[in-house]
Amino acid sequence: MTTRLIDLPTPALVVDAGAFERNLATMAAVRPGATLRPHVKAHKSTSLAAHQVTHGHSTFTCATPREVVGMAEAGVGTDLLLANETIDPVRLAAMARVESATGAMVTVAVDSVETLEAARAAGLRNVLIDVNVGLPRCGIQPERAADLATRAAESHLVVRGVMGYEGHLMALKDRDEQRAKVLASMTTLIECSRAVRRAVGDDASIVSAGGTGTFDLYDPVHPILGQVNEVQAGSYALMDTHYGALSLPFEQALFVVGTVISRTRGTNDGSPSWAVVDIGLKSLGMDHGTPTVDDAAVWFCSDEHTTFSPNPGHTLPAIGERVLVRPAHVDPTVAMHAAMHVVDDVRRGADAQVLEVWPVDLRGW
Amino acid sequence: MTTRLIDLPTPALVVDAGAFERNLATMAAVRPGATLRPHVKAHKSTSLAAHQVTHGHSTFTCATPREVVGMAEAGVGTDLLLANETIDPVRLAAMARVESATGAMVTVAVDSVETLEAARAAGLRNVLIDVNVGLPRCGIQPERAADLATRAAESHLVVRGVMGYEGHLMALKDRDEQRAKVLASMTTLIECSRAVRRAVGDDASIVSAGGTGTFDLYDPVHPILGQVNEVQAGSYALMDTHYGALSLPFEQALFVVGTVISRTRGTNDGSPSWAVVDIGLKSLGMDHGTPTVDDAAVWFCSDEHTTFSPNPGHTLPAIGERVLVRPAHVDPTVAMHAAMHVVDDVRRGADAQVLEVWPVDLRGW
Repeated sequence: MTTRLIDLPTPALVVDAGAFERNLATMAAVRPGATLRPHVKAHKSTSLAAHQVTHGHSTFTCATPREVVGMAEAGVGTDLLLANETIDPVRLAAMARVESATGAMVTVAVDSVETLEAARAAGLRNVLIDVNVGLPRCGIQPERAADLATRAAESHLVVRGVMGYEGHLMALKDRDEQRAKVLASMTTLIECSRAVRRAVGDDASIVSAGGTGTFDLYDPVHPILGQVNEVQAGSYALMDTHYGALSLPFEQALFVVGTVISRTRGTNDGSPSWAVVDIGLKSLGMDHGTPTVDDAAVWFCSDEHTTFSPNPGHTLPAIGERVLVRPAHVDPTVAMHAAMHVVDDVRRGADAQVLEVWPVDLRGW
Repeated sequence: MTTRLIDLPTPALVVDAGAFERNLATMAAVRPGATLRPHVKAHKSTSLAAHQVTHGHSTFTCATPREVVGMAEAGVGTDLLLANETIDPVRLAAMARVESATGAMVTVAVDSVETLEAARAAGLRNVLIDVNVGLPRCGIQPERAADLATRAAESHLVVRGVMGYEGHLMALKDRDEQRAKVLASMTTLIECSRAVRRAVGDDASIVSAGGTGTFDLYDPVHPILGQVNEVQAGSYALMDTHYGALSLPFEQALFVVGTVISRTRGTNDGSPSWAVVDIGLKSLGMDHGTPTVDDAAVWFCSDEHTTFSPNPGHTLPAIGERVLVRPAHVDPTVAMHAAMHVVDDVRRGADAQVLEVWPVDLRGW
């Protein structure tokens, strides 16, 4: 028996198969193979990542040790980067163990002597020097990158190169401004890359940066931008309304499907009608604001509710009707759910066929 | 061997035992026994709810069927209200089954013929008429409440009374304004209660309303407010910075503990210092804004990071140091974690002893 969208208990994550496949193909055409290091944090699913492998990618970016360990155990990806710092000895050791057990290469970002020493002590061998290129978060100050690489080499660690995430530039709408600022950040990163290679040798060749908002800015023939040899994009696969507001060639492929549980008809004196769907703060990442519903105005979200009113000319949905909500931010939304349901075509609404279920198996830390 | 706060893998939820117990005692003094129907959605933990039972409460409010089923199966609470609408036949049947199997009484809110009929069809017997008292969400229009109660009685359902959640009034800071508006909402609810009792009899005696922000406004001797015979407060047990900004007698008892994974020292030219802790959008509910860190300014949160700078006169924490973050909204924050760790005294910081671990066992739907 086939499962249809209307058979899913709600709230539930739904992925449009066509939009998803088109997103992967569009990205792979611009950043083929290892020139993309897809970021797992955006979907936390080894099943989804396996589709990225079929599109030619086998190197992956992770934000948590759990993501690294889960990918290795699932046998998805051959080269896994923890693009984040940790000093947790138990989790670092788990990554070292899984590297031995599965043969997947594990590399961790380091930006301090402390994180470097923690990686070494846990038995990890491969590191990337994480450089601050303008986002005030992790990353060593550029002028200290080569010294940290030297220290790593002295500790018998393999320095594979540098990374620098210009996350503060992802959502700039003016592409000329974005290109100029990305160039400035990458100029810093390439200077660090040169200094690191002078310090530890030319095998430290990785220059990893970027994301969905900048994926096509690293023109291979540009003297600086062309030296960025891998892009850490993740959101492109599923997208959200935040990235959707930019002029990117990716489609919204992720929705949360809910059931209308209550509705109130406006009165003749002009008070509005509204409906309530069973999707709320516990099934939607809210840091980028409220979600959207097609042909409707979203009023607000509560723990288990989204209240919305149909736009003029659209009817108030019936109790029991399914409604697709577009989340504002994909990463935290996916992390709230146990699984994603891939359907043939979301435009078929309640009748859409569920083709596959992808467990969100990389949740937690 | 005792576990200390510093032994916890981070991010992790931490509950201060003293603050928690004082919150429960303060509430039980004002709303003893069944005059409080504690809301489970704020903590999603049967272990925490068991402490509410020791403070004299045995009736509980739930937002999801999963919360109802989990409470009944754990044997915590004797009278469980789903204060929310659902038409999901599988989940309604699960609640009916657990009612038979455990003897816990299950009551569901209904605000339409559809939700009423779904409850009846699943074998549930007890309903509460959910009335809209001003929050544009669920709840039937007041003038239709008695008709729905009549319909329920005709369907051989037991109407236990009415509920009306004035959620739009919870966070009003001016208490005089809040009291006046709560009185207006409760006047509507009491009129509905009278109409429902005229329609189906005086056994429909429950008048359920309110929350943490209004818990002490239902003066027992007031002709209207005194008729509200149960309050659905949940956040009071753990609190958050949103409710903490009001003049309530409850203390922040919930924190997220993280580890400093990176820091950057400001330079002599006046650029600021900052630290990064491993708590982000996947471990914090963000709908009420960014969290707070004592003696520091929080700059922003990313998926797995919070960047903050110490206030003047306070030192930049070291890599590896533990930091307590105060979430802005307790409910969605707790739902992102598998467990809460109860410690003897958060003021002891890294040395605080872990006394108990409460699984967050009521997650999902």
